[in-house]
Amino acid sequence: MEKRFYFDWAASAYRNPSSQHAEGKAAKDALEQARNRCANILNVSPQTLYFTSGGTESNSIALFSNLMRPGNGRILSSLAEHASIREAMETLVKIGRSTGKINVDSAGRVTPHLLSKALSQYNDVRFVSIMSVNNETGAITDISSLTDILHNSTIGSAPVHFHCDLVQTAGKIPMDISAWDIDSASISAHKISGPRGIGLLYLKKPIEVFYSGGGQENGKRGGTENVEGALALADCLEMYADSKRVQENYAQAKSRWTKLLETLVSNKRCTIIPKERTASDDTFSPYILQAAFKDIPGEVMARALDDLGFAVSTGSACSSSSPERPVLAAMGVEESLRIEGIRISQGHSTTDEDIELLLNAIDQVLKFL
Amino acid sequence: MEKRFYFDWAASAYRNPSSQHAEGKAAKDALEQARNRCANILNVSPQTLYFTSGGTESNSIALFSNLMRPGNGRILSSLAEHASIREAMETLVKIGRSTGKINVDSAGRVTPHLLSKALSQYNDVRFVSIMSVNNETGAITDISSLTDILHNSTIGSAPVHFHCDLVQTAGKIPMDISAWDIDSASISAHKISGPRGIGLLYLKKPIEVFYSGGGQENGKRGGTENVEGALALADCLEMYADSKRVQENYAQAKSRWTKLLETLVSNKRCTIIPKERTASDDTFSPYILQAAFKDIPGEVMARALDDLGFAVSTGSACSSSSPERPVLAAMGVEESLRIEGIRISQGHSTTDEDIELLLNAIDQVLKFL
Repeated sequence: MEKRFYFDWAASAYRNPSSQHAEGKAAKDALEQARNRCANILNVSPQTLYFTSGGTESNSIALFSNLMRPGNGRILSSLAEHASIREAMETLVKIGRSTGKINVDSAGRVTPHLLSKALSQYNDVRFVSIMSVNNETGAITDISSLTDILHNSTIGSAPVHFHCDLVQTAGKIPMDISAWDIDSASISAHKISGPRGIGLLYLKKPIEVFYSGGGQENGKRGGTENVEGALALADCLEMYADSKRVQENYAQAKSRWTKLLETLVSNKRCTIIPKERTASDDTFSPYILQAAFKDIPGEVMARALDDLGFAVSTGSACSSSSPERPVLAAMGVEESLRIEGIRISQGHSTTDEDIELLLNAIDQVLKFL
Repeated sequence: MEKRFYFDWAASAYRNPSSQHAEGKAAKDALEQARNRCANILNVSPQTLYFTSGGTESNSIALFSNLMRPGNGRILSSLAEHASIREAMETLVKIGRSTGKINVDSAGRVTPHLLSKALSQYNDVRFVSIMSVNNETGAITDISSLTDILHNSTIGSAPVHFHCDLVQTAGKIPMDISAWDIDSASISAHKISGPRGIGLLYLKKPIEVFYSGGGQENGKRGGTENVEGALALADCLEMYADSKRVQENYAQAKSRWTKLLETLVSNKRCTIIPKERTASDDTFSPYILQAAFKDIPGEVMARALDDLGFAVSTGSACSSSSPERPVLAAMGVEESLRIEGIRISQGHSTTDEDIELLLNAIDQVLKFL
């Protein structure tokens, strides 16, 4: 290749996809290749995918797009949403927007009945945000049963927008954005072994966003495009979110989770949350489990396991500073169990032996506490 | 180190600084080390620094914090701001917020007189956004002369917040956030050879932000913390923004820019923008130069140079899709020169020979066009 001389440092110290020179065009090509590869795996059109800094930003772009629509149409979200949605809803309330809540069942799931009930309370709903896999219990919501209701309902004059947080779903659970008829969705790279600082926003149709920054990503997300992050995300999706690979990993994860669940269920001091969850129940993700151990606060259990070399969490990392466990409360979990709850979550590289050792470690803790 | 077993994949596929286990604490330690290192170089307290996804997001967090303050206090920005500020101002107008403009001089700079004039037009100003180094002309605004005015003025009851875009300043021009008495500032890693997707927001005092996501970064910026990006940013700041290194690189950059400027000034077909800029003038950054070539539209010039192996730009990459050159228009640059303007910008690794070759390439283009 001919020697090149770079005099566009003010744009970026290296190739900026929004620049018009050869370096810029090469970066733009790389970015679009990353987008095409992601679109191919997700079975959507590349024009519907926008790179963001992650799941939190994708969620906020979708939620705050409501501020650019005329009027004050109501925004509903389930009581089990991730903190990034919950906080956005609080912001919307603070600035005077109409919002509302969708109750969840005892697993943290929105059912068609619960959605219909929430919708029936208002005549001005225009946006609904419901997650696909609950990040605390692993409960899987049947998204297409909900979009069926929404898209067949006649609330107001415009169709209701359905936003879906797919952060715990992509690369874990079989999913189909197109068949599920979602209007917008969020995906994060670092939950599937990718780097931090990169994610995707899916938009079935372009929407006006609250803030377009420098106009990058077709005006949907400002800031110099993170080409390297986008390529890494494409790598991750190809490696973990390809439907065949998802099925294979799912089967193995389920086998490991069955062992974990069946052993814990037989332990008198352990309560699975929700109590009705069984190993064979496919309406839960085999990557996430919430469990409580009698008379041991979750924080103590997590610290004891940590001391033995096992990393588990209480609540989600994004709300580890808030001890209230609002999602478990919304599920109707009694206070003592909420305090005792820990979240155990596995990944594609977890092994059968890891599960055995975790179970041994739990036994060891229970002997002393 | 003892073998560890990771059962917190739902938080992240790897160490999440908001998690409480050993992996989480190690990540938190790494993040705080990165913050301390950045603070040390920037000569500010680590508590004033918040990691973001980049300059655009830092700017937007500062601007939109106004939405959380009671009332509708006026927000002013200069007419030479980067697109990320300009677009945020447009959003604020769309949702009914009071805004106003600060004119710039013929170099794209806000002078104390121009700021005072803008302030005198209103009695409800509470936020002012002015960049330090103009990204199109390199004009350096004397920030402390402006904060002097603001912090000594008696507009309304509360002090006026001064936000400063330092994206083209950090690692390029000697700066002192504390001495300049800035209330908030933006820094981007990729402008100083760091990765995309990481930047800093400086906040002298904590402010309520529009959106706190999962509450990370002390509630100022949501989303799982990009530890690797933060460490890379700390590396970059140590390598390029240390005051001694800035001085050294500045002297070398100025020497190269003197050669470039003096040669271009002597070229009859070239007009430096602004016309009064000379090589010895220290009120311009020696990293950025705007120049116009008679009868050659900037786009044509940039393409011709690109064909010869030289990457220059027209406008900034963040507004390359908008041909209007609003910043040059605000400076009072006549339309023909605006159309002909190109931006040449160098970095720490640019050499004397690169400048010679660029000048030769420009001569070559001028022979044929």
